[in-house]
Amino acid sequence: MEQTLLLNQEEIKELVTMKDVVKLVDKTFQDMGNEKTVNPTKVLLDLGETAAYPPYEGFMNAMPAYIGWQDIAGIKWAGGLLGKRKELGLPYITSMILLINPQIGNFVSVMDGAYITNFRTGAQTANALKYIKRGQKSIKVGLYGAGMQGRTQTMALSEVFDIEELIVYDIYREVAEKFKESMESYVRGNIKIAKEPSEVAQNVDAIICVTQSKDSFLKDEWVQPGTVVFPMGSYQEVENEFILNADHIVVDHVEQCLHRGVLKDLNEQGKVTKEHIDATIGELAIGVKTIEDFRNKRVICIPIGTGAMDISVAKFAMDEAKKRKMGKPFDFLGTGEIATPL
Amino acid sequence: MEQTLLLNQEEIKELVTMKDVVKLVDKTFQDMGNEKTVNPTKVLLDLGETAAYPPYEGFMNAMPAYIGWQDIAGIKWAGGLLGKRKELGLPYITSMILLINPQIGNFVSVMDGAYITNFRTGAQTANALKYIKRGQKSIKVGLYGAGMQGRTQTMALSEVFDIEELIVYDIYREVAEKFKESMESYVRGNIKIAKEPSEVAQNVDAIICVTQSKDSFLKDEWVQPGTVVFPMGSYQEVENEFILNADHIVVDHVEQCLHRGVLKDLNEQGKVTKEHIDATIGELAIGVKTIEDFRNKRVICIPIGTGAMDISVAKFAMDEAKKRKMGKPFDFLGTGEIATPL
Repeated sequence: MEQTLLLNQEEIKELVTMKDVVKLVDKTFQDMGNEKTVNPTKVLLDLGETAAYPPYEGFMNAMPAYIGWQDIAGIKWAGGLLGKRKELGLPYITSMILLINPQIGNFVSVMDGAYITNFRTGAQTANALKYIKRGQKSIKVGLYGAGMQGRTQTMALSEVFDIEELIVYDIYREVAEKFKESMESYVRGNIKIAKEPSEVAQNVDAIICVTQSKDSFLKDEWVQPGTVVFPMGSYQEVENEFILNADHIVVDHVEQCLHRGVLKDLNEQGKVTKEHIDATIGELAIGVKTIEDFRNKRVICIPIGTGAMDISVAKFAMDEAKKRKMGKPFDFLGTGEIATPL
Repeated sequence: MEQTLLLNQEEIKELVTMKDVVKLVDKTFQDMGNEKTVNPTKVLLDLGETAAYPPYEGFMNAMPAYIGWQDIAGIKWAGGLLGKRKELGLPYITSMILLINPQIGNFVSVMDGAYITNFRTGAQTANALKYIKRGQKSIKVGLYGAGMQGRTQTMALSEVFDIEELIVYDIYREVAEKFKESMESYVRGNIKIAKEPSEVAQNVDAIICVTQSKDSFLKDEWVQPGTVVFPMGSYQEVENEFILNADHIVVDHVEQCLHRGVLKDLNEQGKVTKEHIDATIGELAIGVKTIEDFRNKRVICIPIGTGAMDISVAKFAMDEAKKRKMGKPFDFLGTGEIATPL
């Protein structure tokens, strides 16, 4: 039996570029469209993010998936914590990914999942925008939140589009300034820092919300026709009116999107149901659905995040590591048995 | 940040005895009864066990949990595969367990989960039987299936009870004979090998079904008053009549038990619902419910298996490993940073 390949985050950074992740996510969205990916609804372990008990400010999501085009199965266990984790200066996201050979069930790899999570989240947006705005090459971007996710969103978009201009708002001005400094190489035109949230939404092709905000700060009246809004936060960043008035709703995973994040409340009120979802990103990826006349439409697109994307990227990282003889094999059975890889 | 402690199966075998597991499972059932454990319904990734696609004969279950009395969170990803796995002579169960510090979200341990799965499954039955048959010290046991699970069930029961007699049936006579040979030290009286399935159910206190059978082989008419039946298989081992005629239904996790295993079909037909479940094992553990006059009752008890039990045992294994300086630390962040354990 093959041993289990352990990969740490620094190795994964070497093994996987944003260009790779954008391609992998594209193929896996197509796989989902072709119904070759199996991706059950993620299961939440609430550690006190919203539950009254236990008393920690965080959650963990279990996200198993099988990817047809790569013939791999795995799970990501990932979450976010504030509280003591934040006090210690640790990043919000914590994550681990496990891969198995789906034929035999042996564990082929265990790796850190935080870096992959950040990268694939950016790549999901970039690919989804590509499918919605078929043929468009250059874009203007509005960004709420200039943290880690804001960076990976920008990096991913720059792989797929020519970013003409990016306007960013962060509640901390200095965070926005640091963002501008480190992200300028990804943007052809200028990065502007908005003084008011409303400025971000003017005259852009895509609005990306990557904040921890619990307020519905993005107002319906700010959003122009021709704009795709990506509310990526855990909480509702967009006011109900925009969701109800949008021309199209696009999601990555119907069940997940109705029960978590931006659509949750309206779904519970019965105002947004399965019937209001016009397309999945997978359906747009393979072209069985398209967003007609997208230059005049207001679209809300929710890539809430699927384990499929993480498993797909992790499989690539493992294969690359094997090619480059990186990582560390570990024998979780402890029998010392090493046969030829199956 | 503390590194992640890796433990292999051989180390876990050294670190954890059945006596330990029986005690841990007892405490964790009490924790569940006291509502201090958080254990969402497990999420299935079907790799072809029942689904038409993908084409592998197996499944994986994601089982996250938080355990209050130990203040630990974790996930077990575990499944069973036949097909190529079986051809290779590998055990049915494949599993890995991840533990995090729930306050900070850092991964404190990654370990094999197969051994813990087998042991805790036995310990669940033994403890549940103890709660149902309050005060009874010596028992007669009927066992269907003489494989790995049959052994760990017997080992666990022998920690809690004096086993006066055990009668075992296996479709392979030689498997039953091997079982008898290796298990005699756990049984005060004799181990008898049954020629016919019906013999197992006569005049026993508990009937344990640990088979891969898809037939409802256990007949209602075989089961005497005073017997607790444990259908532990993935499929339905007990005929509908017994379930419908039983005096009491006891489960470990209401939602899970209605949607998987022995109650699934009857639940889908609306014949067994939440209202038919008389108690959870946790409620019996803390004594808020009891099975009155158990010597004259026919009880069906379904410990379908909760991640809580695995996480509880895994936490103990990690703590023991630290005490004994076993296991191997691994830095999944790859930053080489090692601070004092938090």
